[in-house]
Amino acid sequence: MKALILLSGGIDSATALALAVRRYGRAETAALCVSYGQKHDKEIQAAEAIAAHYGVVLKHIDLSAVFKDSGSSLLKGSDEALPEGSYAEQQQASDTQVVSTYVPYRNGLFLSVAASVALSLGCESLWYGAHADDGAGAAYPDCTPAFNRAITDAIIEGSGHALTVEAPFIGSAKADIVNIGLSVSVPYELTWSCYAGGETPCGKCATCIDREKAFSANGIADPALSTKQ
Amino acid sequence: MKALILLSGGIDSATALALAVRRYGRAETAALCVSYGQKHDKEIQAAEAIAAHYGVVLKHIDLSAVFKDSGSSLLKGSDEALPEGSYAEQQQASDTQVVSTYVPYRNGLFLSVAASVALSLGCESLWYGAHADDGAGAAYPDCTPAFNRAITDAIIEGSGHALTVEAPFIGSAKADIVNIGLSVSVPYELTWSCYAGGETPCGKCATCIDREKAFSANGIADPALSTKQ
Repeated sequence: MKALILLSGGIDSATALALAVRRYGRAETAALCVSYGQKHDKEIQAAEAIAAHYGVVLKHIDLSAVFKDSGSSLLKGSDEALPEGSYAEQQQASDTQVVSTYVPYRNGLFLSVAASVALSLGCESLWYGAHADDGAGAAYPDCTPAFNRAITDAIIEGSGHALTVEAPFIGSAKADIVNIGLSVSVPYELTWSCYAGGETPCGKCATCIDREKAFSANGIADPALSTKQ
Repeated sequence: MKALILLSGGIDSATALALAVRRYGRAETAALCVSYGQKHDKEIQAAEAIAAHYGVVLKHIDLSAVFKDSGSSLLKGSDEALPEGSYAEQQQASDTQVVSTYVPYRNGLFLSVAASVALSLGCESLWYGAHADDGAGAAYPDCTPAFNRAITDAIIEGSGHALTVEAPFIGSAKADIVNIGLSVSVPYELTWSCYAGGETPCGKCATCIDREKAFSANGIADPALSTKQ
């Protein structure tokens, strides 16, 4: 196996998987999705459907035990309601920049698990879908450029330079990712981004808002909405 | 809770725990031990005994699923025998600097899990027992100074500067750690370092050799040996 792609079931990582499969071929590409105690399993179902579409092996690891003391509003154990509105609106309404859907150091943990799995499989490359919008405004400190640089260094050094880290969209906006993905026919109708676990996306949470904007900027409606509604 | 200490059950992390308890008090200090599919659970038993000695909460997380495809000789799933001799001798006998007991990116994973748990508990500080001998000769790439610097940056950035990382022995040799630990009465008779899971330490593996040297440099026999033999 040559490459492992961290696959959340959303737009960004699905597009990263598409590019990795084009580079390495499906037999040399694997995907990894992680359960972390989220309130629903729509993301996992989406990751399974995307991996099946591309015909790649999907590894699934359950790390929900790690977050059992966390109060993040994304998690099953939390009584806090999922927030509505954009990240900027949430930050204005709060006395902290970090939003309630931040799961403590989640991306650092996911990338570290992915590094261990990638090395175990003999991969030379670990891919993930971080992009420029993710870390904007410090809503998610584990999505900032400073974090991405540091974790990339840690994985390169900690693997003895056996593993490289590829974040092909680190300088791109989400709309640019969709633009690239549409050109290589990523099956966006299979992806899931919404924080809520309804039959269809809620359209009100920050990730639904970001997603709608990204498709709108490309002049199309969200393929997931047109399929599911 | 103020501090979380990554506790392996060995000398270094037991000494780090002792210093953290002195700084924060036992009620504000917690420990974390991780199962990763190792061939025996002597380390976990040692971590439990050390945490009980200090009267601190011990969290235990099982990450063995992460390494199920790894061939590391430390793991249950491996047919490879545990190597004997020092790390330098193993490197001379091999065509690679990395030793067979390297578990892929284990320390990066453990520190990332510890960061997530520490933030979930509201801690301000994460402690671990990395020391100068650990990364010597690149036997373990996830113990080198370059790795330690990068993962520390990743955790500080990824937590939004909510968490600091303390590695009090990062510039110290193992013998110096024992010297410090003896001065604050660390119960070394409760610790376990040996790669094998026998009734008593094997005395032949690299970690037994390093441990014996550290006590010998302080003019004493290993307290664990005198208790258990």
